[in-house]
Amino acid sequence: MKIAFVVYNNMTLLDFAGVYDPLTRLKTMGFCPDLTYAVCARTDQVRSSEGVVLVPDRVMTDLSCFDLVIIPGGDGIKELMQDRVFLAWITVASERTTVAALCGGSLLLGAAGLLRTRKATTHPALMDILARFTQDVSGDRIVDAGPVITAGGVTAGIDLGLYLCEKIAGSTVREKIQMQMDYRHYSPA
Amino acid sequence: MKIAFVVYNNMTLLDFAGVYDPLTRLKTMGFCPDLTYAVCARTDQVRSSEGVVLVPDRVMTDLSCFDLVIIPGGDGIKELMQDRVFLAWITVASERTTVAALCGGSLLLGAAGLLRTRKATTHPALMDILARFTQDVSGDRIVDAGPVITAGGVTAGIDLGLYLCEKIAGSTVREKIQMQMDYRHYSPA
Repeated sequence: MKIAFVVYNNMTLLDFAGVYDPLTRLKTMGFCPDLTYAVCARTDQVRSSEGVVLVPDRVMTDLSCFDLVIIPGGDGIKELMQDRVFLAWITVASERTTVAALCGGSLLLGAAGLLRTRKATTHPALMDILARFTQDVSGDRIVDAGPVITAGGVTAGIDLGLYLCEKIAGSTVREKIQMQMDYRHYSPA
Repeated sequence: MKIAFVVYNNMTLLDFAGVYDPLTRLKTMGFCPDLTYAVCARTDQVRSSEGVVLVPDRVMTDLSCFDLVIIPGGDGIKELMQDRVFLAWITVASERTTVAALCGGSLLLGAAGLLRTRKATTHPALMDILARFTQDVSGDRIVDAGPVITAGGVTAGIDLGLYLCEKIAGSTVREKIQMQMDYRHYSPA
C-alpha cells in the first residue's frame, strides 16, 4: 500500500494534516509495516494559505504509481481549477488507484472531470460550485464512490483519514488510531 | 496580539495544525486584522514524527515578545524534556505571555517547572508522567490556569485553538470559525 499526500501552494494546512495523521499511524503504530507514503507536490516548496512552508518528499512524481492519492482543499484551488497540467497530474482514479479529496479538493476532482458520473461532497459553503461538476451532490460528511472518495470541509479530513484507516485495516485498528488521536466524535456520515 | 507557534523535530504535525488553523483564521477571516503570528523553531528546518519537513518563519527568536505561545506534542518531547536550553526557551509564561500546550507538549511545560503549582491536562496515555510535575492532574479536555493553558491529545488542539479564539475575540467569532472549519463537536471541557 502506497499513499501520496498531494500538497500545493495556498492549500489549507489542516486539510492535509487531518488526513495525514490517522493514515500515517497505520505505519507508525505498527498496523501496516509495509505501508509507504510520500508528500507530493509540483514545486520544491509549498506555502499553505496560512503561510507555513512545507518541503515535499517528491516533486512531479507519477501519482498513478500510488494506491491512494489524497487531495486537500484551500484557497489555491481557485487557480488550480484552471491549471490543466495540475488537473491532469491528479486525474489518476482507476481500478488500481483511489483518489480521495476533501473540502475544496473535491472541486479539483470536479474540474478534472472525475465527478461527472459520481456522487460527491465538499465544504458546506462550496456545494453550489460542486453542482457544476456533478448532478449528485451530497451533504454527507464522506461519500465513497468507487475509486473517487470525497469529504466535507477542513476537519472532515480527520474523519476521512479514519474512514480510510478502517477501509484499509478494519474497524478495530481505526478505533485504536482514533483513541490515540484523542478524537471523540468520529463522523463518517 | 502576537502568536508564536513552536515547532520541533518529531512533533506530531496535527498537534500543531489543529491549533494553527483556528487561530490564524482570526486574521485570515478578518476578525483580528492586527494579529500577527510566526512559526518558531530552534532549527532551520523541522521534521515531524510522521516525516514531513517544515520551514519555520523564525529561528531562535525570543518567545517572551509574544502574547501567546503554542507548544505541540509528539515523540520529540522525550529528548526535549532533558534539553535545558529548549526548556528555558519556552519558559515564558508571565503576565504578558500566555503559554498553551497540548498533548505531550504539556509534559514539556512540566519539565520546565511551569506546572508545579498549577492544574494541568495532557493526552490520556500520558497522565502518569504529568503527575510527576503537578499534584493537580485533570482529565478535562482543556485546563486554563492563568498564563498556562493545557489541553488533551492530538485533536484536542482543535478545541484548544477554538477556545483561544473565543478568549481573544468572543463566542460569536469562535462559532463562525468553527463553522468555516466544518467542525461539529467543539469540546472545551
